[in-house]
Amino acid sequence: MFMHNKRLQYTVRVAEPNPVLGSLLLEQFGGPDGELAAAMRYFTQGLAEDDPGRKDLLLDIATEELSHLEVIGSIVAMLNKGAKGQLAEAAMSEAELYISMTQGGDSHTQSILYGGGPALTNSSGVPWTAAYVDTRGEPTCDLRSNIAAESRAKIIYERLINITDDPGIKEALGFLMTREIAHQKSFEKALYAIEPNFPTGKLPGMPAFTDVYYDMSQGDGAEEADVSGPWNSGENWQVVSDRDEQAAVDGGDGTASVKVSAADKKVLTTLAKRTQSNPDVDPTTGAELGAGPGAGAISSPVQ
Amino acid sequence: MFMHNKRLQYTVRVAEPNPVLGSLLLEQFGGPDGELAAAMRYFTQGLAEDDPGRKDLLLDIATEELSHLEVIGSIVAMLNKGAKGQLAEAAMSEAELYISMTQGGDSHTQSILYGGGPALTNSSGVPWTAAYVDTRGEPTCDLRSNIAAESRAKIIYERLINITDDPGIKEALGFLMTREIAHQKSFEKALYAIEPNFPTGKLPGMPAFTDVYYDMSQGDGAEEADVSGPWNSGENWQVVSDRDEQAAVDGGDGTASVKVSAADKKVLTTLAKRTQSNPDVDPTTGAELGAGPGAGAISSPVQ
Amino acid sequence: MFMHNKRLQYTVRVAEPNPVLGSLLLEQFGGPDGELAAAMRYFTQGLAEDDPGRKDLLLDIATEELSHLEVIGSIVAMLNKGAKGQLAEAAMSEAELYISMTQGGDSHTQSILYGGGPALTNSSGVPWTAAYVDTRGEPTCDLRSNIAAESRAKIIYERLINITDDPGIKEALGFLMTREIAHQKSFEKALYAIEPNFPTGKLPGMPAFTDVYYDMSQGDGAEEADVSGPWNSGENWQVVSDRDEQAAVDGGDGTASVKVSAADKKVLTTLAKRTQSNPDVDPTTGAELGAGPGAGAISSPVQ
Amino acid sequence: MFMHNKRLQYTVRVAEPNPVLGSLLLEQFGGPDGELAAAMRYFTQGLAEDDPGRKDLLLDIATEELSHLEVIGSIVAMLNKGAKGQLAEAAMSEAELYISMTQGGDSHTQSILYGGGPALTNSSGVPWTAAYVDTRGEPTCDLRSNIAAESRAKIIYERLINITDDPGIKEALGFLMTREIAHQKSFEKALYAIEPNFPTGKLPGMPAFTDVYYDMSQGDGAEEADVSGPWNSGENWQVVSDRDEQAAVDGGDGTASVKVSAADKKVLTTLAKRTQSNPDVDPTTGAELGAGPGAGAISSPVQ
Amino acid sequence: MFMHNKRLQYTVRVAEPNPVLGSLLLEQFGGPDGELAAAMRYFTQGLAEDDPGRKDLLLDIATEELSHLEVIGSIVAMLNKGAKGQLAEAAMSEAELYISMTQGGDSHTQSILYGGGPALTNSSGVPWTAAYVDTRGEPTCDLRSNIAAESRAKIIYERLINITDDPGIKEALGFLMTREIAHQKSFEKALYAIEPNFPTGKLPGMPAFTDVYYDMSQGDGAEEADVSGPWNSGENWQVVSDRDEQAAVDGGDGTASVKVSAADKKVLTTLAKRTQSNPDVDPTTGAELGAGPGAGAISSPVQ
Amino acid sequence: MFMHNKRLQYTVRVAEPNPVLGSLLLEQFGGPDGELAAAMRYFTQGLAEDDPGRKDLLLDIATEELSHLEVIGSIVAMLNKGAKGQLAEAAMSEAELYISMTQGGDSHTQSILYGGGPALTNSSGVPWTAAYVDTRGEPTCDLRSNIAAESRAKIIYERLINITDDPGIKEALGFLMTREIAHQKSFEKALYAIEPNFPTGKLPGMPAFTDVYYDMSQGDGAEEADVSGPWNSGENWQVVSDRDEQAAVDGGDGTASVKVSAADKKVLTTLAKRTQSNPDVDPTTGAELGAGPGAGAISSPVQ
Repeated sequence: MFMHNKRLQYTVRVAEPNPVLGSLLLEQFGGPDGELAAAMRYFTQGLAEDDPGRKDLLLDIATEELSHLEVIGSIVAMLNKGAKGQLAEAAMSEAELYISMTQGGDSHTQSILYGGGPALTNSSGVPWTAAYVDTRGEPTCDLRSNIAAESRAKIIYERLINITDDPGIKEALGFLMTREIAHQKSFEKALYAIEPNFPTGKLPGMPAFTDVYYDMSQGDGAEEADVSGPWNSGENWQVVSDRDEQAAVDGGDGTASVKVSAADKKVLTTLAKRTQSNPDVDPTTGAELGAGPGAGAISSPVQ
Repeated sequence: MFMHNKRLQYTVRVAEPNPVLGSLLLEQFGGPDGELAAAMRYFTQGLAEDDPGRKDLLLDIATEELSHLEVIGSIVAMLNKGAKGQLAEAAMSEAELYISMTQGGDSHTQSILYGGGPALTNSSGVPWTAAYVDTRGEPTCDLRSNIAAESRAKIIYERLINITDDPGIKEALGFLMTREIAHQKSFEKALYAIEPNFPTGKLPGMPAFTDVYYDMSQGDGAEEADVSGPWNSGENWQVVSDRDEQAAVDGGDGTASVKVSAADKKVLTTLAKRTQSNPDVDPTTGAELGAGPGAGAISSPVQ
Repeated sequence: MFMHNKRLQYTVRVAEPNPVLGSLLLEQFGGPDGELAAAMRYFTQGLAEDDPGRKDLLLDIATEELSHLEVIGSIVAMLNKGAKGQLAEAAMSEAELYISMTQGGDSHTQSILYGGGPALTNSSGVPWTAAYVDTRGEPTCDLRSNIAAESRAKIIYERLINITDDPGIKEALGFLMTREIAHQKSFEKALYAIEPNFPTGKLPGMPAFTDVYYDMSQGDGAEEADVSGPWNSGENWQVVSDRDEQAAVDGGDGTASVKVSAADKKVLTTLAKRTQSNPDVDPTTGAELGAGPGAGAISSPVQ
Repeated sequence: MFMHNKRLQYTVRVAEPNPVLGSLLLEQFGGPDGELAAAMRYFTQGLAEDDPGRKDLLLDIATEELSHLEVIGSIVAMLNKGAKGQLAEAAMSEAELYISMTQGGDSHTQSILYGGGPALTNSSGVPWTAAYVDTRGEPTCDLRSNIAAESRAKIIYERLINITDDPGIKEALGFLMTREIAHQKSFEKALYAIEPNFPTGKLPGMPAFTDVYYDMSQGDGAEEADVSGPWNSGENWQVVSDRDEQAAVDGGDGTASVKVSAADKKVLTTLAKRTQSNPDVDPTTGAELGAGPGAGAISSPVQ
Repeated sequence: MFMHNKRLQYTVRVAEPNPVLGSLLLEQFGGPDGELAAAMRYFTQGLAEDDPGRKDLLLDIATEELSHLEVIGSIVAMLNKGAKGQLAEAAMSEAELYISMTQGGDSHTQSILYGGGPALTNSSGVPWTAAYVDTRGEPTCDLRSNIAAESRAKIIYERLINITDDPGIKEALGFLMTREIAHQKSFEKALYAIEPNFPTGKLPGMPAFTDVYYDMSQGDGAEEADVSGPWNSGENWQVVSDRDEQAAVDGGDGTASVKVSAADKKVLTTLAKRTQSNPDVDPTTGAELGAGPGAGAISSPVQ
Repeated sequence: MFMHNKRLQYTVRVAEPNPVLGSLLLEQFGGPDGELAAAMRYFTQGLAEDDPGRKDLLLDIATEELSHLEVIGSIVAMLNKGAKGQLAEAAMSEAELYISMTQGGDSHTQSILYGGGPALTNSSGVPWTAAYVDTRGEPTCDLRSNIAAESRAKIIYERLINITDDPGIKEALGFLMTREIAHQKSFEKALYAIEPNFPTGKLPGMPAFTDVYYDMSQGDGAEEADVSGPWNSGENWQVVSDRDEQAAVDGGDGTASVKVSAADKKVLTTLAKRTQSNPDVDPTTGAELGAGPGAGAISSPVQ
């Protein structure tokens, strides 16, 4: 059960309203690496988790992320304070209000649609979607996803800190950023406390393909030549660069086939015949009709 | 530049059509951990990457994932072969075709809307969205996201292998699953070849909050008691369980504030007055109107 | 700040696993009227709210809805318990697991993609989107939206109760449904404690059009004839049925016009000429080309 | 059956082109409270409605909303007139056209992608989605949703009127805003003409929980203290503030449980053991590897 | 302005309720090629259109498509008639209602969420999105898009007709399908009445690349060999099969470059150094940590 | 199988960074007519295609479109080069970075969320969705969709060329635009090489309705009068303008009906009675309560 304390986890002191900055900060309110995504990632994992240690960890952090959602949302609300009142009361002229709507970012939508409140969108106004939540119900995956998600959230906060000079906002964002570091550390511990945790799941890989590196991108462009590193060289790896050896690596013919019944085969033949693009005709086409009488052959548009 | 060889990377041999199984396999074609998501994750990273080693690695694997997209898509196409022809040619009676549409999964949409071809949806018919792609342009995040994504893709393949008894499909899925393991290994090497890679980015955390563990979820439910582990105990961690110490951790009052201009303040006061929910009245409401004459007070609905 | 107690707000006792029922119940976990939508609706309103009474109310109920999200999610997790283990451990044969995936609903995606955990989707597997949250930052709107949302959530719970015979689930759903009734009552009180609250906002309507009822749908179909009721008749309403009086009600000519500059006008004329569909020719078209030599005029397809 | 008259319901007179204003007005064309959402809400309700009075009402208003969609779309088209021609004919230099694309809002997408025509997006360019339509097929819900939707549409129009000083646009928006007021009145009448209409549906609430108010958000922050009002006090309400009494309100232990078969239990035990996060080890983690040789313990990042 | 006549454009006679069939038919109500998509495609084009002939045509057909939306929606409503009442009144036992929800397709969501009314989703429950509408404001594109859209709608109706044996539904679907043919013919005429209409827009192609065919997919797989046809052979085409000639076709080096300022260059160098994946180390990685003590080198998982 | 060559298909030479232009160009990277949409359209068609000529054609062009995706993405990456470094290294002051974020378009999200790399969104930041891909598995539809898609992509490139004065970008966009023309020509040839290809599919239309033109939009507005052209006049068409003849064109009564069982009928009657909006009462409503004591009747708001 959740409970709420009216004090924020971190005090929010905003120097002055700035709806445009508010709309940029939405990235961590309703964006893909924002606090709602974090809270829902851990909460959905926690609900299905049976391991008591992880369940506790997940619910601890999910709850903290909800508290962070409140902090970042409160900052956004403060940044929109003046604009909200001005628009609602029509206290400025139409021209002034119009100008205030078009200062940058997507703050216009924040004002017009959301009335100056924090909206669950990213900084481009894209509504939050659960497609951001990559919970899969397997802890060795989910913990890796959590580690990655915390590292992403950290960098977004860093970027936001870099563009803000309001000291109160900077400090609160610094706190939120720091907590992502701490959370990452906890998830790392929980992952490596599962032994083994790699490869994930139960099924081992097929030995013939576990250590192969397919060199699919080749070429001799100046700065972008093939580079060897521990990720594709050394005794751990068998590198396959020959194009023919990259295809049909099972030794088959590289085609796709299915055994269909005689009845299906007959129908498929009929379908094929009916819809064949006959390679032996050169039909007049709509493009030729459309190129117009004065345009000559469609193959030579005039420049 | 991409090139294409008509041979698949792995030969596909499907024993017999099965559109329902085909619709389940779409999870790895157009689902969040499917091959398009993988290819686009690495491709978008590769395009913006300046490090020659990582750029090469990302384009190698992006290209291989596109080749995997082709393998899984070819399996789905084979599984739909018969159904596609039967519906297009109306070779069965309406009743038989109707039954074939309602065998399970979302194979009905596969047939009716997509004509039996592999669609870029997941197994519930949800169209693929770039919201699945978590490229952030910072390698220490992106490589962690890649590691996590590979581990997720591995487990989805494992689950699909577990529900399939067609040996040809099982083998091809096994290959695809194995490659996710290999890719994870490469991305791990590339991540740890950046030193340091933690915490991500440049800004360090605030020391006061980097090692704190907020025990936000408490209680003594039977199996779900608080559990100590390396993720929240030991010398690395300072645990804060006291509810008062969890709030306003900066030592402030835990409120959100902004300095607004006098003009804004005046407008906000007007707005507040106009829209106040007066706590001192007990108004008749729509619910009371709606409870109806014979229903008594709305506070006591009859069971 | 949010805190969490490991005890649920309502004890969940599930009689036996049933993943298909679990996938139906997702409607109230990640569906449009589900608990996340409710929690986020009130939470976003509460963050931007300055009225102390409403802010308190909104945060009280937002927090309770999060607690309900936990209850419904826990039910779903319990219903997936067996299936989750069976698939993860591959404890049944492929054929048995395949059958268990295709029992109905969208439970297949629940198992394959989400590993048996509660996913933030509706019962068709559609990911939750913040497009469901209709917070507008104006209390006389938002409270009406809340009233409506509570009434919708109530009816979805009622439908789910109607299809469930597991007494423990039925009871927990009954609790959740009841709370929607209580919340609706609170929101009604808060709305009517704003005086006046209709029409919303500050701007009055144009008197000439506030009491007009345009009878846009007409006809004498048997059961669907025009019906008079208090919503479109009586002294409150001026009914306009004449088609001519329904158009251009301002007395103008009913066209759309804009004053463009001479330069714009010139460009627009060029554009118009270049892209005119000439009404005076009868061109041969792609359809005629495509109807084929043996098909005759395209206007008479053979049946 | 729908018919169309080329005269608009309200004459549109736009003073001069302004693509940025056009992109803001899209909020009521393809936004969540825009005219398409309104039309589709009432139209889908009307199709399934059997009550002759409501069916007539819903189709009357759905049809009028389509006519409003045409009015607002026509305004947007007029505002884009010049820009459309200039871009299509490349009548200005590249630099001038580039500047005209970056004047604010999301008008760039309007020009580049939609060619200056009204697009079914909101003012941030988010495509309209049927997720905005909350039709549930139960009139006591749907009418409440309609009332709320009309009140939301009213306020969005009010905001748009506040930022526009073009008298022709202002007048047309005033008309559209006024009609939302009138429609709200009609839906109110239709709702209260159902007796009783509260609580919605057939099932009554559980008496023990219908009048309870859970005081989930507590605290003594300055302006945000707990407030009593008719929504949570008085004889109608039983307030529960004690945290222990808020949890497990059924008197149970507040846990979630399910009876699983012996076979399931065995599998779940295996799964649990395999994936346990062992609380008794302190593993080296990726974070420690990644913190780098010169960084010291990960728990103390240098500031 | 739109008007409505209560008579449908085509009488709907449904033999008996069948919610599953209803959910399949949603494909043409709220699916990508359904009637709402059609209506909105033509309506948005019509609003921005200045050519009087095309504007008239587009509004004629948009209005008819809205009338078709009503026909298909009415069929769906009829197919859900019984189910709607049974669930609302709970007239059957829970077990019976549960069974009726899980008969196939996504009819469960239709009943539980939408209450048996036609929902603006496709047959998998995916909400309609304006992403389906490809209006671009250039008639030579838009008319081609319309032609294509009509042809798609035609085939979806054909598939639905093939799975339905209810004569009344079959007949109504036949009418709707036929109208798509007629509409395609009209759009073809309007397209070819623009001369020239190919290539679209004003800018001609670069002559060096207009008639080139890049043979990007090669190989000698049995059935999938390279095939010559009028689309890639004959005097109209210059075929380029040599891989080297396919790359950097402008004669450059095929790299991407940008001139950055000295300041930028310095920053980029710092960034590159900080985030380099060092190719000269072979770091221990998380995968190696995770493979566990008993697992040996990660490069050789045991099968 | 796909392979990759590090040389681009067309050399990219960008004169100087410009993140705002970069965000506009995203339209062809991750927008609805962009290169990913094109590649996926043809790739999904190619996978399911059995006709050897078309399969080859589709895979040739799909592969080229992927190569174009790389070209346009590389341009965007170059345009973001400086901004990426400046933000990552915080090399400018906060104020300067803030200003650089708010220069226009949605470049702020590009920098903050995507770190300056090309993102799979359109120019408004909307994530790419497979809803853009209209593959239907019937070649006479799909080829028409491809023709239309190529024409749309051509015009978007033309618009982007019109707003760019960087010669290197202009040239590369010119190449990409030209290839759309060439592709359209190939698809036209493949379509018309199927004979017949109109109407699509197997089922002919109903003769009574194939040549009818319903004149649904009427009226005498100045510039928008009914216009006759080859699309709705001449001997090919039977025009129906009479409103009565447009409705119930089958000669029925234009109603929707279904035969329900006696049991269903009884339930439906109960439901109807319970939820009737009684036309014979004039209930007091929430609007009247809300209009407030001083406001008079709700039907006469003061202006």
